[in-house]
Amino acid sequence: MGEFDLIERYFKAPARAMNKHSVNGVNGVVLGIGDDCALLQPAAGMQLAVSTDMLVEGRHFLSTVDPYKLGHKALAVNLSDLAACGAKPLAFTLALALPRADEAWLAPFSRGLLALAAEHNCELIGGDTTQGPLNICITVFGEVPGQPSQALLRSGAQAGDDIYVSGTIGDARLALEVFRGNLELPAEAFTQARARMETPTPRVALGLALRGIASAAIDVSDGLLGDLTHILRQSGVGAVIDTSIAINLIAIEAINTPATPQFNLQKQLEYVLAGGDDYELAFTAPAAMRAAVQAAAAASGTKVTCLGQIQAEPGLRLVDGQGQAVPNHYSSFDHFK
Amino acid sequence: MGEFDLIERYFKAPARAMNKHSVNGVNGVVLGIGDDCALLQPAAGMQLAVSTDMLVEGRHFLSTVDPYKLGHKALAVNLSDLAACGAKPLAFTLALALPRADEAWLAPFSRGLLALAAEHNCELIGGDTTQGPLNICITVFGEVPGQPSQALLRSGAQAGDDIYVSGTIGDARLALEVFRGNLELPAEAFTQARARMETPTPRVALGLALRGIASAAIDVSDGLLGDLTHILRQSGVGAVIDTSIAINLIAIEAINTPATPQFNLQKQLEYVLAGGDDYELAFTAPAAMRAAVQAAAAASGTKVTCLGQIQAEPGLRLVDGQGQAVPNHYSSFDHFK
Repeated sequence: MGEFDLIERYFKAPARAMNKHSVNGVNGVVLGIGDDCALLQPAAGMQLAVSTDMLVEGRHFLSTVDPYKLGHKALAVNLSDLAACGAKPLAFTLALALPRADEAWLAPFSRGLLALAAEHNCELIGGDTTQGPLNICITVFGEVPGQPSQALLRSGAQAGDDIYVSGTIGDARLALEVFRGNLELPAEAFTQARARMETPTPRVALGLALRGIASAAIDVSDGLLGDLTHILRQSGVGAVIDTSIAINLIAIEAINTPATPQFNLQKQLEYVLAGGDDYELAFTAPAAMRAAVQAAAAASGTKVTCLGQIQAEPGLRLVDGQGQAVPNHYSSFDHFK
Repeated sequence: MGEFDLIERYFKAPARAMNKHSVNGVNGVVLGIGDDCALLQPAAGMQLAVSTDMLVEGRHFLSTVDPYKLGHKALAVNLSDLAACGAKPLAFTLALALPRADEAWLAPFSRGLLALAAEHNCELIGGDTTQGPLNICITVFGEVPGQPSQALLRSGAQAGDDIYVSGTIGDARLALEVFRGNLELPAEAFTQARARMETPTPRVALGLALRGIASAAIDVSDGLLGDLTHILRQSGVGAVIDTSIAINLIAIEAINTPATPQFNLQKQLEYVLAGGDDYELAFTAPAAMRAAVQAAAAASGTKVTCLGQIQAEPGLRLVDGQGQAVPNHYSSFDHFK
């Protein structure tokens, strides 16, 4: 199967089928797959939010991963960036390097990718395929109202704001440690942790619900503290985080159970604060918005937890439940360190 | 050097320096590098043209290529897609997988990339960096007037239209064959051919000048006949190409010179018709537009050559200077064949 047949069978034809009920232009898509460029036209007064993420075998996923789940994850991590801006998904492009045109891989990969795309009404509008070491690069487009922009930025946090995180944090790292042979988990817990690692849920509905409520937001991909630091730097503020709340953000209890004798509270906190691959939202909101934040969480069906406060003094401080300082040993994931 | 230092030093800081004289929003860029998403706002009535291209070592460039030239080429092949749509460049994102954070590579790569970006006033607005086998994925954004769209599409060719190609074709392939050891060239000719392969010139000015004149357009990346076939299929037409004109589209004379005894006319025609990596524009225009096409060519300082006509009967026919049929042995580049 050649390059153009492959594009037609696994991407163009399913995308056409998926998009046939969407009237041209409704989603901002004037022209989709098949020309030198796609054409987008955001609705009047809307701004286009753009993000790009590249996934590499061995760094972002294991070579043994189910291709369906990988298709899901490749789009999910990009939708997560839209969520962190409060943008509504519109469309995406897919560039794909493949060692070979393997239909047994491509068929489930495209199904997983396009199933999540359909769920978010996010149209595949173009791309590129080439032979090479497996690499998936998606660029995603969403819209936010402009003038004044309602996009959630990293730069809006103010002293006194509450700091929240959505869902649960640290479970994806738990699964990774099992794959690495550093940890054992009971079968059911491993299944749950593995789902968090392999099929993250982008918090698009929560991001939309937080427009006009959150003062700053970021998605948690490299580790909670590291990602939060981007908000602090860009907002010119500091923060205090209550580790006694944070430690309970992990969904899976793996603390010194008989199956996991090597696990302990210290490790659990590390996975919560620096685990990475969570694709939850970390965000800030003024204390006066507490009820509005809970209403947004309820409306989007997403749990949110307040685990600290923004402070004027720069830097990130950890405290225990009694307000006593806790040393910060937790470094975030860096692809080149 | 970690991931975030690397981004800051080689991409964010130079991009800021380059963009500091561009007033916010002038280029449609509301928010650039540094948040979860960039924000674009096309001017009222404009459509956003989007294209993505992925470059892989060993497929799109040799491992020995000068990183400055590779930076140029990675953006050039994307700008070429905008040119083929008649779109004005606005901005781009860069996703980069690197085996290691090698400053001796990154410094010239970013200089080459950002020099071409500056030439086209095309702003770097975001991206992603990761560790992995070298892979460069750029997504580029341009604008075209909408309603009715002035984008040049592949689907507009009509029987009777002339077929043109810009610049010269086949020289990049000539250089590749020298690198492969299949051909020798005099030093000066090799330098010229190598420049065509390593630092192609995107025909952005010509694309803009052809708005409202060309009936269809595509950029020549996989090979002239293969790329032209996309226009024919999408327009539901056929074409005749005069090989006696096509053969002269190659800039470099390598025909049976003492240095290249193994070269001949047949090979030369193959490189012109199916060589690939040219990044010229192939386009069609009604016969009534001949003077307008030449005026657009002159205004943009780009040579164009008419080498055939669109016909109602589907299929691509080659003829010699006397109108006699020439067999078509020329297949286009396919990444999976």
